[in-house]
Amino acid sequence: MQNLKIDGERLWDSLMEMAEIGATEKGGVRRLALTDLDRQARDLFVEWCGAAGCKVAVDAMGNLFARRPGRDDSLPPIATGSHLDSQPTGGKFDGAYGVLAGLEVLRTLNDAGIETEAPVEVVCWTNEEGSRFAPSMIGSAVFAGASDLAFGHACADVDGKTLGGELARIGYLGDGCGKPLGAYFEAHIEQGPILEAAEKTVGVVTGAQGQRWYEITLTGRESHAGPTPMAVRRDALVGAARIVGEVNRMGHAYQPDACATVGMMQVSPNSRNVIPGEVFLTVDLRHPDDARLAEMDRELRGVAAAAAESQSLEIAVEQIMQFEAQPFDPECVALVRDGAAKAGIPHLDIISGAGHDAVYVAGVAPTGMIFVPCADGISHNEIESATPEDLADGCQVLLHAILEKAGAR
Amino acid sequence: MQNLKIDGERLWDSLMEMAEIGATEKGGVRRLALTDLDRQARDLFVEWCGAAGCKVAVDAMGNLFARRPGRDDSLPPIATGSHLDSQPTGGKFDGAYGVLAGLEVLRTLNDAGIETEAPVEVVCWTNEEGSRFAPSMIGSAVFAGASDLAFGHACADVDGKTLGGELARIGYLGDGCGKPLGAYFEAHIEQGPILEAAEKTVGVVTGAQGQRWYEITLTGRESHAGPTPMAVRRDALVGAARIVGEVNRMGHAYQPDACATVGMMQVSPNSRNVIPGEVFLTVDLRHPDDARLAEMDRELRGVAAAAAESQSLEIAVEQIMQFEAQPFDPECVALVRDGAAKAGIPHLDIISGAGHDAVYVAGVAPTGMIFVPCADGISHNEIESATPEDLADGCQVLLHAILEKAGAR
Repeated sequence: MQNLKIDGERLWDSLMEMAEIGATEKGGVRRLALTDLDRQARDLFVEWCGAAGCKVAVDAMGNLFARRPGRDDSLPPIATGSHLDSQPTGGKFDGAYGVLAGLEVLRTLNDAGIETEAPVEVVCWTNEEGSRFAPSMIGSAVFAGASDLAFGHACADVDGKTLGGELARIGYLGDGCGKPLGAYFEAHIEQGPILEAAEKTVGVVTGAQGQRWYEITLTGRESHAGPTPMAVRRDALVGAARIVGEVNRMGHAYQPDACATVGMMQVSPNSRNVIPGEVFLTVDLRHPDDARLAEMDRELRGVAAAAAESQSLEIAVEQIMQFEAQPFDPECVALVRDGAAKAGIPHLDIISGAGHDAVYVAGVAPTGMIFVPCADGISHNEIESATPEDLADGCQVLLHAILEKAGAR
Repeated sequence: MQNLKIDGERLWDSLMEMAEIGATEKGGVRRLALTDLDRQARDLFVEWCGAAGCKVAVDAMGNLFARRPGRDDSLPPIATGSHLDSQPTGGKFDGAYGVLAGLEVLRTLNDAGIETEAPVEVVCWTNEEGSRFAPSMIGSAVFAGASDLAFGHACADVDGKTLGGELARIGYLGDGCGKPLGAYFEAHIEQGPILEAAEKTVGVVTGAQGQRWYEITLTGRESHAGPTPMAVRRDALVGAARIVGEVNRMGHAYQPDACATVGMMQVSPNSRNVIPGEVFLTVDLRHPDDARLAEMDRELRGVAAAAAESQSLEIAVEQIMQFEAQPFDPECVALVRDGAAKAGIPHLDIISGAGHDAVYVAGVAPTGMIFVPCADGISHNEIESATPEDLADGCQVLLHAILEKAGAR
C-alpha cells in the first residue's frame, strides 16, 4: 500500500478539462455558483464519478457526494472534496483541485482494486466563494449545522435570485443536509506565498484563522463639486478613504498573521462633479488568535466612527459574518504530516488564512487540510497557477491520509 | 420700461411643469442628456416657444435657439439660456431655471408689446452636465469653437451610444454650429451657500474658476484577502484611498476658493475577499487663480505618484479637461449689477465655482451671469430648492440686462 501512487498526469488532464468550463481570455475561470456554467461543471463531475463506478447523492444545499462503498458500508464515510464555483475573475485551481484530487484518489483505488473498510466519498460543496451569494461557504455551513437550511436557500444575488431557486433551476436541489463523516480532508492551493518562499511542496494545515466580515455605509450630503466650499462639505468618500487607510494600517499593526482588507466599495452617485453622498464598503479582518481579532474588531469600530465624525457623516457598521479560529483534528493533521514525510515531500506546518469548507466541517468531523503552492501566492485571480508536480504531491498525501483513515486492505 | 415686471408666478409654474419630466420620488429630476426624457423636455420647450411666437432653430450639436425677431433683424441676437439635461439625481432648477427665465423674458416682452432693436434668442444647450457624455458643456464648447463638431458627435456614454447618434435618434440633429451673438446672459442657481449665508438675492457673477479634470487608474495585483500577507500586497484601493485623502487636503490647503473633489471611483474586481487589483477614479480641481491651479496640478501629480509607489502600483494620470479661469465682460457684469441695484434687490459680486455654458460662450461673445440662492447651497441633488421670489428677482435682473443690450423702445 506504501507504493500506491496517484496518476499526476490524469489529475492534471481532468483539471484542464474542467477549467474549460467558464474559461476566460486571460487563462482563468469565471464560474459563479449555480450559473449555467456551474451546472456544466457539476454535470462533468457527476459523469466522471459515474465512470468511476460511484453514485452521486445531492443534498438540499446542492452539495454533491460521490460514494465509493466500503467493506463495512455502515461506517461513516471518509470524505474529501472542495468546490467547483469560482470568483468572478478566478483561477483554474481554487476549489477544483480539491474536488478532482478526491476523484483521482477514487480512480487510483479502483485501478489497484483496493477495498477500504469505510466508504470513501468525494464532496463538491455549493457556493464556497460567496461571490454570487453572500455569505461564502454556505453549502458546508448548512451541512455542519452552522446555518439554517432556510437561510441558505434565501441567500440572494444582486438580481434578487435566491440560492434555493437557482439550485432548482439548474437541477441540483436534493433532500436533507448533514450526516456523520468519519473524517474529512481537503486539498487546496495555498492562495498565499508562504510555501513558495520556504521552498516546500506541502503545507500541513494545523487550523484556520478567525475571520470577521463587515459592511459599512457612510452617508454624507451629495452636492456640486464646484461651488460647495471645502469647509461645509460632508464627503462620504473622504470618510471612506480614511477607513481604507486605517484598515490597512491595522493589518500591518496586528502582525504576525493578521490580514485586513477593504475589497469592495460602491460610491453614490459616482459622478465626476458631484461630492459623493453615500459610500458602501466591506471590511475583511482575519487573525489566528481570537483575542487579537476581538481587539481588531474594537479598533475598527473606533476608527470607522472617527472617520465618519471627521466629515460629519452618518455611519452604519454591520458585522455580517464571524468565524472563530478553528484548530484542526490533531490525528488528521498528523496523518497529513506523516504522509508527506513518508513520501519524502518537503513540507511545513501552516495556518490557513483563507476560509474553506473544511473549517465548517471541522465543527462536526475530524478534519485536516493539505496545501500545495501556487505561483507567487496569487489566487482569486485569472493568472492563478500551480505545477502538475506539486498538485500530484498534494494528491499523493491525500491518498495516504484517506487510506489510513478508511482502513485499506 | 423701468416699471416692466416679469411674471414670477408664470415662471414658477413653467419650472414645476418642466420638473415633472423625469421627476424622482425624492422631489428631484433625472433627465440625462438625449434620453427620451430629455426629448420630452425639449419638445415642451419648443411648444412653449411656438406659443410665444418664436421659431426654434436646431444646430448640429442639438443646441436650440428660440428667436424673437428684432426691429433690425440683421443685428446679432442678444441671447440667454442654459440647459435642460440633469445629473443622475439632480434637482428642478439647475439649468431649467436659465432656460425658462429666458422664456419668461420673451413672454413679458410679448405681453407689453415691446419691440427690441436686436433680436432676442433663448438657448437650450446640449449635454451641459456631462453625466451621460463626458466632457460636460460640449454643446456650448462646439458652438464656441473650443471643441470640434466631430469630437462632440463622437462622445459616447457607458453603453457606447454616441452623442451624435442619440441626437439623430431623438430628432434633434440640425445643421451648423456657431454664430455671432451680440451678448449672452445666463441665469442660474448659485449651487453654493455663499448668497444664502450673506443674505443676498442676486449674485453678480464676475467670472468663472479655472477647472481641471483628471482620470487616474491604479493597477496593483488582485489576490486573495486571506492568505496574502500584508507585506507583499499591491492593493490598488489602499493607493486610491490615499489619493482621495490628499486631494481633500489640497482643497483645504489652497484656500480661498479652491475646490478639490474625487467624485467617482470604480474598484475591480470589487469582491469582499479579493485585494483590489485596479481602481479608476476621477479628480476635479478648481481655483479662480490659474497660477494657483497650476500649482495644484503639480501637487496632485506628485501625491498621486507617491501614493502609487507606496503600494507598488502602476499609475496612469490623464488630464481630460482644462478651463482657464474666465473673467466675464465688464459691461455685461455692470448691467447685471445695475439691474439689481435699480430693482432694489440685495446683491453681491461672486465667482462661479461651477462650470457653465456661459464660460464657453464668454470666449466668443460679451457674457454675464446672474446667480440666485438655492437652499443650503445644495445642488446636483434631488433636494435642490429655490424660492419663487428669488427666482423671480433673478429673472427681473435678466430682463433689465437684455433690454439694455437689445435696445428697447
